[in-house]
Amino acid sequence: MWQPILVGESRLPMTTFSPLDPSYEEKVRASFAQQAAMASLGIEMVGLGPGWIELAFEPPPGFTQQDGYVHAGVVATALDSACGYAAYSLSPPNTAVLTSEYKINLLRPAAGTSFVARGVVIKAGRTLTVSQGELRTNSDGPILAIMTGTILLAPLPTEGPPT
Amino acid sequence: MWQPILVGESRLPMTTFSPLDPSYEEKVRASFAQQAAMASLGIEMVGLGPGWIELAFEPPPGFTQQDGYVHAGVVATALDSACGYAAYSLSPPNTAVLTSEYKINLLRPAAGTSFVARGVVIKAGRTLTVSQGELRTNSDGPILAIMTGTILLAPLPTEGPPT
Amino acid sequence: MWQPILVGESRLPMTTFSPLDPSYEEKVRASFAQQAAMASLGIEMVGLGPGWIELAFEPPPGFTQQDGYVHAGVVATALDSACGYAAYSLSPPNTAVLTSEYKINLLRPAAGTSFVARGVVIKAGRTLTVSQGELRTNSDGPILAIMTGTILLAPLPTEGPPT
Amino acid sequence: MWQPILVGESRLPMTTFSPLDPSYEEKVRASFAQQAAMASLGIEMVGLGPGWIELAFEPPPGFTQQDGYVHAGVVATALDSACGYAAYSLSPPNTAVLTSEYKINLLRPAAGTSFVARGVVIKAGRTLTVSQGELRTNSDGPILAIMTGTILLAPLPTEGPPT
Repeated sequence: MWQPILVGESRLPMTTFSPLDPSYEEKVRASFAQQAAMASLGIEMVGLGPGWIELAFEPPPGFTQQDGYVHAGVVATALDSACGYAAYSLSPPNTAVLTSEYKINLLRPAAGTSFVARGVVIKAGRTLTVSQGELRTNSDGPILAIMTGTILLAPLPTEGPPT
Repeated sequence: MWQPILVGESRLPMTTFSPLDPSYEEKVRASFAQQAAMASLGIEMVGLGPGWIELAFEPPPGFTQQDGYVHAGVVATALDSACGYAAYSLSPPNTAVLTSEYKINLLRPAAGTSFVARGVVIKAGRTLTVSQGELRTNSDGPILAIMTGTILLAPLPTEGPPT
Repeated sequence: MWQPILVGESRLPMTTFSPLDPSYEEKVRASFAQQAAMASLGIEMVGLGPGWIELAFEPPPGFTQQDGYVHAGVVATALDSACGYAAYSLSPPNTAVLTSEYKINLLRPAAGTSFVARGVVIKAGRTLTVSQGELRTNSDGPILAIMTGTILLAPLPTEGPPT
Repeated sequence: MWQPILVGESRLPMTTFSPLDPSYEEKVRASFAQQAAMASLGIEMVGLGPGWIELAFEPPPGFTQQDGYVHAGVVATALDSACGYAAYSLSPPNTAVLTSEYKINLLRPAAGTSFVARGVVIKAGRTLTVSQGELRTNSDGPILAIMTGTILLAPLPTEGPPT
C-alpha cells in the first residue's frame, strides 16, 4: 500500500535523468552568468546536476515589501531561475528555454537573511518541460514557497558557415 | 550538499502531521461518501492518513475526450478531491474545507483503464492549507498529472443549545 | 489615463482574430461531438467564433460535492473545454490541441441548475496558445469560476498518398 | 447571444466596487511607499481607484535575463504588487493583505524600456480576494504577461489602551 515517504529536509525527489547535451553544465553556467538580475540580487549557483539545480542568496538591501520581509518578487525571481535552469540542464544542444508560465504559493513570509532555492525537473519533453522548485531559509528550514513552472524549448537558429 | 533524492515510485514526500481532529478518519470518510460525483466516476478511497489520501478509479464509459483518453476533467476531479481531503484530514473539528483554486499540469495523456490519485498536505494553516497531488496509471507508472491547490478552512456554524 | 472599463455582464473582452483554418467552425463542432464527456455532462456548444466559444449545461444528477453544489470537477471540465476549443478555433489546419496546464479559481459555490462557460483566446501562438474562461449561472449572473489555460498545438501526422 | 467585446487597448474590465475603507487611497499610497523593492526597481503608482491600480516603470540596468530582456522576476514583482494593491484598496480598515499565490503567463518577451502594470479585483471577499493583472510596454502595446492572484486578508492586531 502506498504511503507518503515522511521527510524533513526536502520535498523534491526526482527520477534519474540523462542529459541530452554532454556540455550541459557548461551551458547552464554560461547562461546563468549572463543573467544580470542574478548578480544584482546576489543569487549564486551552488549545486547542479542533470535535471536539478540549487541556488543560494542573501538579498541585498532595498528588496523588501511593506513589512520588511524579502519581496515575493525576489523569491519568484530565484525560483523561476531554479525551475528554468533545471529544465535547461536537460535540453538538447542548440536549444533556448523560455518560461511560459508558473504558479507560486507563498507559504510563509520570507523572513531571514539567507535563502536556498532549488529546482528539479518533473517531466522533460521535447517542446515543454515541467519543473518544480522550493525556497527555504536554509537547508533544513521550513519551506517558504513552492513553484510549478512550464518551460518552452525552442531550437536556436543555427548559424551558417562563414562566407 | 543538497541533492534531490532519486526515486521511481513517488514524488510526494511529506512532513509528519498531527491531526487536530481525533475523528479525522471518520469525518473524511463521511464527507467523501456524500460526494455523489465520486460514486458517479467510480472513484474510491483506498488509503488515508493524517495529511494524505489515496484514491483509485476505473473511469466509467462516457468520460473520454476527442482522442479516446480519459477527459482531463475526470483527472482534475480526482486530484481536486485528493488535495481537498488531504487538507480536510488535518482540519480542526467543525471546520468546512473549500477548494479556493488549483493548478493542474497534464503531463501525459491519461491513457489506461485504472488510475490512482494521491494527495498530500504541504502546509497546513489555520485559514489556508496547500496540498499537492499526482495521478498515475498505477502505483509504479509514470506521473500523468500534478496538481497544487489552495484549500480554505471555514468554521462551521455552531448550533446553539435547544431552547 | 487608463481606467478599467466598468462592466456588469462579461469580463472576457478579446482582440480580433483571423482564423487560420477556413473550416474552423466545422472542425470545432466535429471534435466537440467526439468528446463523450460533454454529452455525459450535458454540455452543449451555444456560440462559436474565431477565438471564442460559449457552452451551456444543466449538470445531470450525480455530479455534486458534499454540500450539494455542482462538483468543481464539472466546472473545470466545462471551462477546460471552453479554453481548449477557443484555442482550437484559431489553430492551423491539421493541428491537434492539448491542454498543457490550467489554473482555476473557484470564486463562489456553483449553486444553480444551469450554467454558461465561456472561453476566449488571449494570445494565439504557433506552439502555445493562452486562453481564459469564466463560468456563470446565466448570462448576467455573478462569475462563479475563472480559468487561465495553456494549450499546446501539435501538427497532426499527415497521411501519405494511397499506394 | 453573448459575444466577447472586441477591444484593443485593455483586457481588464471590472464591476463597480465600493471601498470599505474611506481612506483607501491614503493607505495604499502609504504601504506602497514602504515597499523598498518598488523604489529599487523604479516602479511608480500612476493611477488608483477602488479595486484597481496602474503602475509604471522603467527597469534600472542590471535586471535583465540571458537574452537582454527584462527578467521575468521584475515583471512578476510589478504584477504581484498591482494585484495586491488592487485588493488592498477594497479591504476593510485595519486589515493586512498577503499574496497567497499567483500564476503568471509570460506571453511575449519583456522587450522595451518602459512598462505599465495594471491590476483589478475580480472578486472581493472577506478572507480571500482574487485579482488579475496585465503588463504592457505602453498603454496600447500588446500584452506581455498576465497574472491571476489570490490575496489573503488578515485583521491587524488591534492595539490595546496604554496602561
